[in-house]
Amino acid sequence: MGEFELIRNFFAAAPCAQTGEGVVLGIGDDCALLAVPPGEQLAISTDTLVVGVHFPEACDPFLLGQRALAVAASDLAAMGATPLAFTLALTLPDVDPDWLQAFAHGLNLMAQSCSLSLVGGDTTRGPLSLTMTVFGRVPAGQALTRSGARPGDLLCVGGPLGDAAGALPLVLNQRSAEASIAHALLAQYWSPQPQLALGLALRGKATAALDISDGLLADCGHIALASGVRVVVDRDALPLSAPLTTFLGLEAARNAALSGGDDYVLAFTLPASQLAGLLAAGFSVHVVGRVVAGQGVALIDGAGQDVTPSTRGYQHFRETP
Amino acid sequence: MGEFELIRNFFAAAPCAQTGEGVVLGIGDDCALLAVPPGEQLAISTDTLVVGVHFPEACDPFLLGQRALAVAASDLAAMGATPLAFTLALTLPDVDPDWLQAFAHGLNLMAQSCSLSLVGGDTTRGPLSLTMTVFGRVPAGQALTRSGARPGDLLCVGGPLGDAAGALPLVLNQRSAEASIAHALLAQYWSPQPQLALGLALRGKATAALDISDGLLADCGHIALASGVRVVVDRDALPLSAPLTTFLGLEAARNAALSGGDDYVLAFTLPASQLAGLLAAGFSVHVVGRVVAGQGVALIDGAGQDVTPSTRGYQHFRETP
Repeated sequence: MGEFELIRNFFAAAPCAQTGEGVVLGIGDDCALLAVPPGEQLAISTDTLVVGVHFPEACDPFLLGQRALAVAASDLAAMGATPLAFTLALTLPDVDPDWLQAFAHGLNLMAQSCSLSLVGGDTTRGPLSLTMTVFGRVPAGQALTRSGARPGDLLCVGGPLGDAAGALPLVLNQRSAEASIAHALLAQYWSPQPQLALGLALRGKATAALDISDGLLADCGHIALASGVRVVVDRDALPLSAPLTTFLGLEAARNAALSGGDDYVLAFTLPASQLAGLLAAGFSVHVVGRVVAGQGVALIDGAGQDVTPSTRGYQHFRETP
Repeated sequence: MGEFELIRNFFAAAPCAQTGEGVVLGIGDDCALLAVPPGEQLAISTDTLVVGVHFPEACDPFLLGQRALAVAASDLAAMGATPLAFTLALTLPDVDPDWLQAFAHGLNLMAQSCSLSLVGGDTTRGPLSLTMTVFGRVPAGQALTRSGARPGDLLCVGGPLGDAAGALPLVLNQRSAEASIAHALLAQYWSPQPQLALGLALRGKATAALDISDGLLADCGHIALASGVRVVVDRDALPLSAPLTTFLGLEAARNAALSGGDDYVLAFTLPASQLAGLLAAGFSVHVVGRVVAGQGVALIDGAGQDVTPSTRGYQHFRETP
């Protein structure tokens, strides 16, 4: 048995690979089999993380395992889907048992916290990268797409923005910060919590939703385009954490929130009448703008003045040719 | 819009990305949505191909696109699943429009030939690799697993074996061959035809099935282990193509068939009473052995003599540290 077959057996024995709800057949055959309840549909999303592009080579494998699955699961939250399962395609330059153990530990913790079962994948030799495909279920017609935003809707987000982008200089060892600040920001970068419960609560309420990966402005652009509306973001209403504003100052913190990316917080539109119910249910929902007729995205300040920047959006930390 | 976003739009506009049967929502949102008919289950398989490990750097992108999807779809055939959809995670060192166009063309042809719709994925920068995840549907309880082989069953394969392994020295430009031989062998390597119709026909008939990727002996080992039986392979009954035996000679052709891998031909076990129906339906089915009580895999010659080799199984063409 080759090293890579041993790794497959290692993952097959992981706690998160033990059969979960909806998993008819897990790792070990030509295909996994999932059961989808009558009246429900299967939601699917795929994310690839490449060393040197999405994470630094020296990063902690425990944190990498956590983060990779969290990023993928966040797409299920954005769709209002109930998590079912995931596959892991892992490409490794060599077989390092300590690395694998730590990676699997982080993966397991996030899988269990998200109720996701590992049902298959592939393990190959090559430059380090991971492709996660996640599966969820959602009642037919109730998935949260990007295309239903209507003029008059509020634009909301599910929590503070910019922390992960603010953490990037810490991740890359380009800056240091006081321990409590570093801890708070790095936690958002390495262990984002997919807002799965919020996604479920938004079914039948939100008119459009996504998870913020490219930065609020760029992602609002996706909603504006898919829905055929204009999204107006209020710069002065952005929820910013105290660690972020302390670390970066207000202006840079706002920029991190608007254009930093990697938040994996939900952004969504909904009629104003739906807001009270979400707040009463205990969700942290912040109104950060509104939907109007038109197209594109505009940024205004608290006085209603247009302050739209000329460029925006997320770049991976080293996405250069 | 960045180069990689342009690529995503390029794939979203591909013919195979236009909505197919069972595809409720395709590329462009946080998740794709698939509908699974009541009483059916979803079959899922993931395969990664890495440059320098699974294919040479200089390979034709058209052929790579074809082959990558065929290899993945073959797992659906092995499960007896009806193809539905696939996702593509493509990691590219740079953006080469000619390369992408040719790759997408090959991908499209195979997708259409397999009735698979492209519903999502990810495109990132990094060393060239592809991860395909394929989805099919199968009536509950009718999937062909590896675990049902019983003593007394026949061992069968769905076509000639060894051609793809025989093609490897041609793929790597280590040898040359007469044009008609090269053409025949390379076609099996670059454009394996997933045996989807055979897989469907085996539902309710085969007791175990898989597609041969690691070589017949190694893959029979998987059936033996999962089913708790011994699989006896008859070396003299192996179906070998004329181009292969001409190119390699009989002994090396047999070795390619037994241990070469990359065939993507179905191997399956079934009661002898089921054979006539498959042959009458026009399927190319070859009896190459039988299932007995015990464990492991044995190789015999036509006289019943044990000729089991001491080592077996597939190595990627350059899977070295």
